[in-house]
Amino acid sequence: MKTSKNNPRLKELAPRQRNPSGIGLVKDLEGEGKIDSESFLLNGFQATELARAIEEIKEMKKQKAFIFLGFTANLMATGLRGLVKELCKKKFVDAIVTTSGSIDHDAIRAFDDYEIASFNEDDEALHRKGINRIGNILVKTKSFEKLEAKMKPFLEKCYAEKKIWGPSELMKKLGTELDESSFLYWCAKNGIPVYCPGITDGAAFGLQLYFFKQKRKDFAIDVTADLKPMADAALNAEKTGAIILGGGITKHHIIGVNILRNGLDYAVYVSTAQEFDGSLSGAKPKEAKSWGKLKEKGKSVHVNCDATIAFPIIFYSLKDNGLL
Amino acid sequence: MKTSKNNPRLKELAPRQRNPSGIGLVKDLEGEGKIDSESFLLNGFQATELARAIEEIKEMKKQKAFIFLGFTANLMATGLRGLVKELCKKKFVDAIVTTSGSIDHDAIRAFDDYEIASFNEDDEALHRKGINRIGNILVKTKSFEKLEAKMKPFLEKCYAEKKIWGPSELMKKLGTELDESSFLYWCAKNGIPVYCPGITDGAAFGLQLYFFKQKRKDFAIDVTADLKPMADAALNAEKTGAIILGGGITKHHIIGVNILRNGLDYAVYVSTAQEFDGSLSGAKPKEAKSWGKLKEKGKSVHVNCDATIAFPIIFYSLKDNGLL
Amino acid sequence: MKTSKNNPRLKELAPRQRNPSGIGLVKDLEGEGKIDSESFLLNGFQATELARAIEEIKEMKKQKAFIFLGFTANLMATGLRGLVKELCKKKFVDAIVTTSGSIDHDAIRAFDDYEIASFNEDDEALHRKGINRIGNILVKTKSFEKLEAKMKPFLEKCYAEKKIWGPSELMKKLGTELDESSFLYWCAKNGIPVYCPGITDGAAFGLQLYFFKQKRKDFAIDVTADLKPMADAALNAEKTGAIILGGGITKHHIIGVNILRNGLDYAVYVSTAQEFDGSLSGAKPKEAKSWGKLKEKGKSVHVNCDATIAFPIIFYSLKDNGLL
Amino acid sequence: MKTSKNNPRLKELAPRQRNPSGIGLVKDLEGEGKIDSESFLLNGFQATELARAIEEIKEMKKQKAFIFLGFTANLMATGLRGLVKELCKKKFVDAIVTTSGSIDHDAIRAFDDYEIASFNEDDEALHRKGINRIGNILVKTKSFEKLEAKMKPFLEKCYAEKKIWGPSELMKKLGTELDESSFLYWCAKNGIPVYCPGITDGAAFGLQLYFFKQKRKDFAIDVTADLKPMADAALNAEKTGAIILGGGITKHHIIGVNILRNGLDYAVYVSTAQEFDGSLSGAKPKEAKSWGKLKEKGKSVHVNCDATIAFPIIFYSLKDNGLL
Repeated sequence: MKTSKNNPRLKELAPRQRNPSGIGLVKDLEGEGKIDSESFLLNGFQATELARAIEEIKEMKKQKAFIFLGFTANLMATGLRGLVKELCKKKFVDAIVTTSGSIDHDAIRAFDDYEIASFNEDDEALHRKGINRIGNILVKTKSFEKLEAKMKPFLEKCYAEKKIWGPSELMKKLGTELDESSFLYWCAKNGIPVYCPGITDGAAFGLQLYFFKQKRKDFAIDVTADLKPMADAALNAEKTGAIILGGGITKHHIIGVNILRNGLDYAVYVSTAQEFDGSLSGAKPKEAKSWGKLKEKGKSVHVNCDATIAFPIIFYSLKDNGLL
Repeated sequence: MKTSKNNPRLKELAPRQRNPSGIGLVKDLEGEGKIDSESFLLNGFQATELARAIEEIKEMKKQKAFIFLGFTANLMATGLRGLVKELCKKKFVDAIVTTSGSIDHDAIRAFDDYEIASFNEDDEALHRKGINRIGNILVKTKSFEKLEAKMKPFLEKCYAEKKIWGPSELMKKLGTELDESSFLYWCAKNGIPVYCPGITDGAAFGLQLYFFKQKRKDFAIDVTADLKPMADAALNAEKTGAIILGGGITKHHIIGVNILRNGLDYAVYVSTAQEFDGSLSGAKPKEAKSWGKLKEKGKSVHVNCDATIAFPIIFYSLKDNGLL
Repeated sequence: MKTSKNNPRLKELAPRQRNPSGIGLVKDLEGEGKIDSESFLLNGFQATELARAIEEIKEMKKQKAFIFLGFTANLMATGLRGLVKELCKKKFVDAIVTTSGSIDHDAIRAFDDYEIASFNEDDEALHRKGINRIGNILVKTKSFEKLEAKMKPFLEKCYAEKKIWGPSELMKKLGTELDESSFLYWCAKNGIPVYCPGITDGAAFGLQLYFFKQKRKDFAIDVTADLKPMADAALNAEKTGAIILGGGITKHHIIGVNILRNGLDYAVYVSTAQEFDGSLSGAKPKEAKSWGKLKEKGKSVHVNCDATIAFPIIFYSLKDNGLL
Repeated sequence: MKTSKNNPRLKELAPRQRNPSGIGLVKDLEGEGKIDSESFLLNGFQATELARAIEEIKEMKKQKAFIFLGFTANLMATGLRGLVKELCKKKFVDAIVTTSGSIDHDAIRAFDDYEIASFNEDDEALHRKGINRIGNILVKTKSFEKLEAKMKPFLEKCYAEKKIWGPSELMKKLGTELDESSFLYWCAKNGIPVYCPGITDGAAFGLQLYFFKQKRKDFAIDVTADLKPMADAALNAEKTGAIILGGGITKHHIIGVNILRNGLDYAVYVSTAQEFDGSLSGAKPKEAKSWGKLKEKGKSVHVNCDATIAFPIIFYSLKDNGLL
């Protein structure tokens, strides 16, 4: 069985292109290596998919695609808020789609702290202490109350201006009231629209609308107002791309609006949902092709990984490549 | 090692209650058995959780709880639409929360058919044939177009009536236009509100709002309008319960509104999402306790199973128990 | 939007066959329905896959295929032990492949009881009480000790007979010592071989081998001994089929041996594992085709569902069809 | 709502310790950041768990624990083979537990290449071309045949030496025949035992044993032979730790043998399996505590992530900390 200990294979491992699906040869990671797109591409399984995601995002930028960034609210409770903020500050993305909870977390974290804990906390005890849990992250009820207190004058100010608001108009106004740690601030400053199609569904911002509306019955949020700007963006772009962290309404809203232009040109999904239950959250990019949400020849990657691990790798790789 | 072949164990297997968590002894399923709550309870793993879900729903009804039923849109593309329709027809549930896609599927399937296929279809070929895929289910683009054609006069009729609508008002009006196979029809007939907090996010109903709004710029859907009736229902009920199939905005909206009453009394989740990514979709009922979305002493079950398998078992067990 | 309330669609819903992937039209489940292969087939998502699994097993039997049944050890801690026992008693299957833990559970449960609990037990407290947890099932350490006490004379008896044993020989001998509640008993009685390629890896049977070997150094279990009978079975069968509950060594061993005959003719997987991590446990049947573990034109189904829910549905459907 | 744009919070974010579960405050990732244990620890969700895994492995080494490294076979088809090789070369781990497929991949890749592809290959076409798929990695049947050709003289050489072998003896002998790219080579050289409790279950090494045994009927692999050295290692160590990538027999064998010493002191699981199905693969570390597989006060982390992404991060962090 003897094979040469100076195996020539060890020298020839530069990636070779092969058709149709071949990317290159699997290459053993080296002791003196690092986490980057190149080493991950030839590593296999999800490391490969993650590297492909990085390459696809580079391509989006090179092709000057209009980029939709979507993320679920839980991610704004994590350190990823800093990276999303950077993407907005640097105008790396052109539109944001997210849920109401993202607004809560982005705003609260501009003035208060969340805490790292474990997934196995005693939730009944936490409740008695006024602490709310999001996975292994804790938020004080008091933090929500502080935001709620700020919401009242904010909504009054909005109401004084006009009665009927589109969600992205409210987001823009809110952004101007937050500090530089906030992605909403930078979106407002840089003219990046923040679409929030399920704006009433949040623990702080959402429920405050209920209380505010009790007093101001003619205050309204017209969700149909955001359809035109979002559709126009999709229709006017030469190419569109999507970077979608997580699933739900965020994911669907981005790919859905792209039906109007016969599909996205690029789609990068980072998700832990599975396709076997027929859910939109778990649907792979290829399913989107049948709908015309992604072009038949559109490029796509699905990275199955928690975004708190995958997204920093993507972000810092883009930075190392001078794209950020 | 000889053990008696007339093992007395085989006779004494009736469930015994034990503290704190004990439900009974594991009991081998019998050749002459059937699928029911009793045999599943002592089977173990998710069969046990499914049986506990059935028992908890029985308890909700016994305690006359106000029941919120939530489901994701993909389920209205399946045979479960028939069971949801039955629950509404029999007034088994008191309010529905769902997404815009559910409206599309419920309406389209009142006049057109979906088809069973596989998860491995050639999506590019499907697209060329005008067929859209949802997991292993196919829908023709033509079916969507038929719905869109019906939407125009429907929205005109609405607009003629008034300019600003709440989502549940639209749902009620739409229900009266559908046939008896539709859950929206029975909700309208039986006064069961259908809340749809992300109403613009749908391929047919959602995108039609965009086209309609082009012509009728003062047409608006005020999502804040539904907060009061939904909150009132939660606040006025002596007890509330939730049956939630899937995750996303549907799940959060139901448990979120119950914060106002310091939590649900009962929560049954049927979901395939996992908690490790800190997502709301994957959060277990105990996480909801920290938020006051479920009472500290509220009863809850999380069944990890595709709803197309789990929900028929739940439904027919309730029926066998005379509850439907 | 009016559609006829006597929608003719409601009458014409008998399944129509369509090419290539079409099975029939989605059919709403009815209030007066039941859980069976017919209603599940047209339900969608995993219900459809489960129905297809039932149909495929019927076909295996019709074609008189040699059937390998595989399951992971945790399932022998559940009520499924009763159904597996029935399959062996009725000679529905021709060979069993499983892990060492299955032997422990099958043997212990012939004389002692397991208990249903929750997934959220206090494991440190359980340990102090001498209770071991398997998901939501509890087993007393004392139960393991009873088995261990029985193992010593059993192994002495084996050793007196000969020094080197194949795993399936040991399983057969053990079966004759158990009672009729045990699948090993029926396998021994009915000449169904039980292959256990990882026989030393178990908490009771496995670790007892360590203690026994201390005294009887020339006692040996030769795992290569089972390769020939298992290979012969695969090679001599006109057709082979596999019913595999769970993953790991059990799954691989069944599909691996079928390489020798250029693949299984039928494969039914019931599993919750996913394919994104490149694991054998999560690999779909189509991956097995590349290896020649499943024939290119072999029939296969993958049901993504906990076996405690899926397998009783499969079993009782086969029974309703007179196959058991 | 105005909050200071020079929010002092941004300066005070150094982690503060809090009881009982608090690790520190969530800290936004910075534009100028990098992937390391420190930034991941305060990121949240699985990034936090991954950082905790790194910290726990550092602690294992500091405490001079005897470290068991386990991994499933698929990972030896990826670039992780290079990192595992490094761990063995640097004697970072004290024992390996793995499956038969790992031997195949480690040996084949010493003389032949695997290729990166996609998860959506046409498996029937691959089969016709003599290519086997493992997730998104391809292996030629010819590569397996080359190994099989080498196996025959190797087994003859073994047989000439003695008739009955323990799995780890065979692994050691095999290692001396491979080149420096192989982990088996370094294990043999450095006296690190490689335990393979399911040694017959592999496509190349496993099935070759079947052919070899046809001619040499008295050749045997006695799996009970490895129980004593493995148990002795566990019993003699002052502290033991486990790093387990994936599940199945690999995972169980490591934690199972530690029952003999009343549990591991440290356990790091990297896995994508879930606990809801009661499987050993999906069981969290806390379940192991009930069994005495992990000490009641043993430290443990479960990282839910594909190992191709998580393990390089762990490895290079240990290296950055001078531990490798």
